[in-house]
Amino acid sequence: MKIYDIPGFPNPFRIRVVLAEKNLGDQIEFIKIDLPAAEHKQPAFLAINPTGTVPVLELDDGLQISECTAITEYLDNLDGMPVLTGKSPREKAVIHMMQKRAEILIDSVGDYFHHATPGLGSALQAYKSPEWVGREEWGERQRDRAVSSMRYFNEVLKSQPYIAGKTFSMADITVLGGLMFAGFAQIAIPEECTVLVGWAAHMQDRPSVKQPV
Amino acid sequence: MKIYDIPGFPNPFRIRVVLAEKNLGDQIEFIKIDLPAAEHKQPAFLAINPTGTVPVLELDDGLQISECTAITEYLDNLDGMPVLTGKSPREKAVIHMMQKRAEILIDSVGDYFHHATPGLGSALQAYKSPEWVGREEWGERQRDRAVSSMRYFNEVLKSQPYIAGKTFSMADITVLGGLMFAGFAQIAIPEECTVLVGWAAHMQDRPSVKQPV
Repeated sequence: MKIYDIPGFPNPFRIRVVLAEKNLGDQIEFIKIDLPAAEHKQPAFLAINPTGTVPVLELDDGLQISECTAITEYLDNLDGMPVLTGKSPREKAVIHMMQKRAEILIDSVGDYFHHATPGLGSALQAYKSPEWVGREEWGERQRDRAVSSMRYFNEVLKSQPYIAGKTFSMADITVLGGLMFAGFAQIAIPEECTVLVGWAAHMQDRPSVKQPV
Repeated sequence: MKIYDIPGFPNPFRIRVVLAEKNLGDQIEFIKIDLPAAEHKQPAFLAINPTGTVPVLELDDGLQISECTAITEYLDNLDGMPVLTGKSPREKAVIHMMQKRAEILIDSVGDYFHHATPGLGSALQAYKSPEWVGREEWGERQRDRAVSSMRYFNEVLKSQPYIAGKTFSMADITVLGGLMFAGFAQIAIPEECTVLVGWAAHMQDRPSVKQPV
């Protein structure tokens, strides 16, 4: 299998943690996409993923799967023993609900970073909308939304060890990716979110998080 | 089980089609949430779903599940015979990828409707941001995004009968919900999207779509 991504970036990180959790790292050939050069906005990459995002998983028969939730469903179910996406209907439901809420965090940070800051630099400017009145204000609203989301997860973690309950799941990985991205975008975690900060530090003890593929 | 929703609205429609597909309609007690009166923005409902959206599925033991993808995963897997969310890793992956793309359509229509038009009326105005410079322009950008999404699905359906391939799935339901919402919000399907229009008409022959729960 191949993965089109760029190491060290938040959404690629999510799938690299999944690969480490599932011991699949040695089955993947990585192909680096140069995001700061806007390679993901060019026709060659848009043919791989029309929504222009990384990572993309390419199977040996050529099927290309984008979107982290979809890629995680594939990798986690490949051996018939899912550990990140739930086994029972109830587990699947709660994990998918929390995954969606976690994506509010990571996507809001991304929207702030790309619209209200210089983002990844000048090559990507052509794909923004300088004529859009209110673009930066909209981006700043997304930052506020990300911070609200941090407060929400801080509350969630007061009564359970993981984002979706008693076990580690893809929703934890997504929140960790969101916090990584927030650090990169210089969005501070509110001081009162001590439970979230403690949880994130504790997660670093997990081998897949400490050392993703 | 209970479902908090409002009949005839796009996201509630999605789950009512799922219930019809799975023959689960008679196991649900529906509780109507008055969206035009902003009931979903009040503390009583936010305690049920902090993101303030319908539908929400409540299990008999009290667990409350929001987000259509999560609710669909639950209902579809309840009998151990999933037909809408995929059986193999490959099916799960493609369905979740297309579900995410379909949500771009329905969510963009919703953002246009609520931000660039009077939406559901005056009671909800208090939950918008009149001081946000560019709110309407942002909403109009979401309309353009919805139209691009229609063009994308028109292309997809040129080579396969359903949104995720050879069989009907939750991604079809989401696109149908998106087109229903687009009609309500008066976003026209581009004239050249004849394949999409033909597909949507054909889908009305399906009992669950023609007559959801």
